[in-house]
Amino acid sequence: MSLTLLPVEGIPEVRPGDDLVEHITAHAELVDGDVVVVTQKIVSKAEGRLVPVDPDDRAARAAIVGGESARILRRRGDLIMTETHHGFVCANAGVDLSNVEAGWAALLPVDPDRSARRIRDGLRARAGVRVGVIVSDTFGRAWRRGVTDVAIGVAGVAGVVDLRGTADALGRELAVTEVCVADEIAGAAELVMGKAGAVPVAVVRGVDPAWLRDGSVAEEIVRPYREDLFR
Amino acid sequence: MSLTLLPVEGIPEVRPGDDLVEHITAHAELVDGDVVVVTQKIVSKAEGRLVPVDPDDRAARAAIVGGESARILRRRGDLIMTETHHGFVCANAGVDLSNVEAGWAALLPVDPDRSARRIRDGLRARAGVRVGVIVSDTFGRAWRRGVTDVAIGVAGVAGVVDLRGTADALGRELAVTEVCVADEIAGAAELVMGKAGAVPVAVVRGVDPAWLRDGSVAEEIVRPYREDLFR
Repeated sequence: MSLTLLPVEGIPEVRPGDDLVEHITAHAELVDGDVVVVTQKIVSKAEGRLVPVDPDDRAARAAIVGGESARILRRRGDLIMTETHHGFVCANAGVDLSNVEAGWAALLPVDPDRSARRIRDGLRARAGVRVGVIVSDTFGRAWRRGVTDVAIGVAGVAGVVDLRGTADALGRELAVTEVCVADEIAGAAELVMGKAGAVPVAVVRGVDPAWLRDGSVAEEIVRPYREDLFR
Repeated sequence: MSLTLLPVEGIPEVRPGDDLVEHITAHAELVDGDVVVVTQKIVSKAEGRLVPVDPDDRAARAAIVGGESARILRRRGDLIMTETHHGFVCANAGVDLSNVEAGWAALLPVDPDRSARRIRDGLRARAGVRVGVIVSDTFGRAWRRGVTDVAIGVAGVAGVVDLRGTADALGRELAVTEVCVADEIAGAAELVMGKAGAVPVAVVRGVDPAWLRDGSVAEEIVRPYREDLFR
């Protein structure tokens, strides 16, 4: 079973109130079983999650980050590592000035699983396709350098696939193998998007049909504060 | 530019001293520019990184983990979060009993970048192809549930691609976008391997040719202890 990653090219600059389902269907030929990965930036823009900010006003930027944060975890220089109200651990509560018009900052969607469901439902209703949808964002990690794209919202596709108890190739029982396929798919999609290339959507074709079930980042992937050994 | 992920099927159970280059070329048609992702397990087996262990002897298992660790970071129940001598942060120093014959444990390769270089060089010499090679392993993360596959060694492909200073789609300068493409490729490959399916190699076809340069996990991805805010 091979898997194909297709960038969706030609989507114009997204503005508040835009219909992402229309943008996607205008530029992609989807088929049942595809997983559509949509970057957070255009979801936030379409949902109007933009706030004005003077990019040179550090106090104003910090206030926006504070408003989006449930906890401030670490600070070093300009870097503020936060836990958002969703439970995501990321720099600056996901507030982003890149790929946004000057003078504005994009905030994360209020409920990215819901954002994913709306797109999934819209694609079903208007293009007649049953697909999974992942809303992705670019986060840093502990312990390892470099950022990767991860899932912040999913619909119609699993967050974590539980392989516990499945026999391995030698017939022994696997101890713990809960694979976060949603993050792996989001990262894979990033490989055909590029950071500066303005390709905000990619299609992942050929994923295991068993993964195309109801999923949730909030319920499956976000590790609660009390359960985390590194926060 | 699309990207294709191809599982390499039919590789037999790998034993100490096996020639991985031969296994790979016997079962995959490679072309220049491919990235070949090889799971740590078969690299460790081929390199003879196996030690005998009684799976019911917890003290013996802990001693092996201790020997592979530079630091013990956290403990909870049977879980020991360690920093390995390579600087990887992972459970049980990467010592693994799954997909290994009963009575044996597989240790991580001593120098996974070197392991990747050997495979890359062998494929060049004997199959005449210029490819990148990633040795992958399955690690947990802070903050997020579920494991993902990441790169522990690379050759002929970048660890981190530095997009700092590249203009974004609106012409603004990107602040920090060092993308860990090696981890994203490793995770993508996992999507066609499965955990229990005995597919220890995958080919990623179509990656940006600019990424096919000399790379190193040790130098590019491993975050030094002193630089890390979460250890």
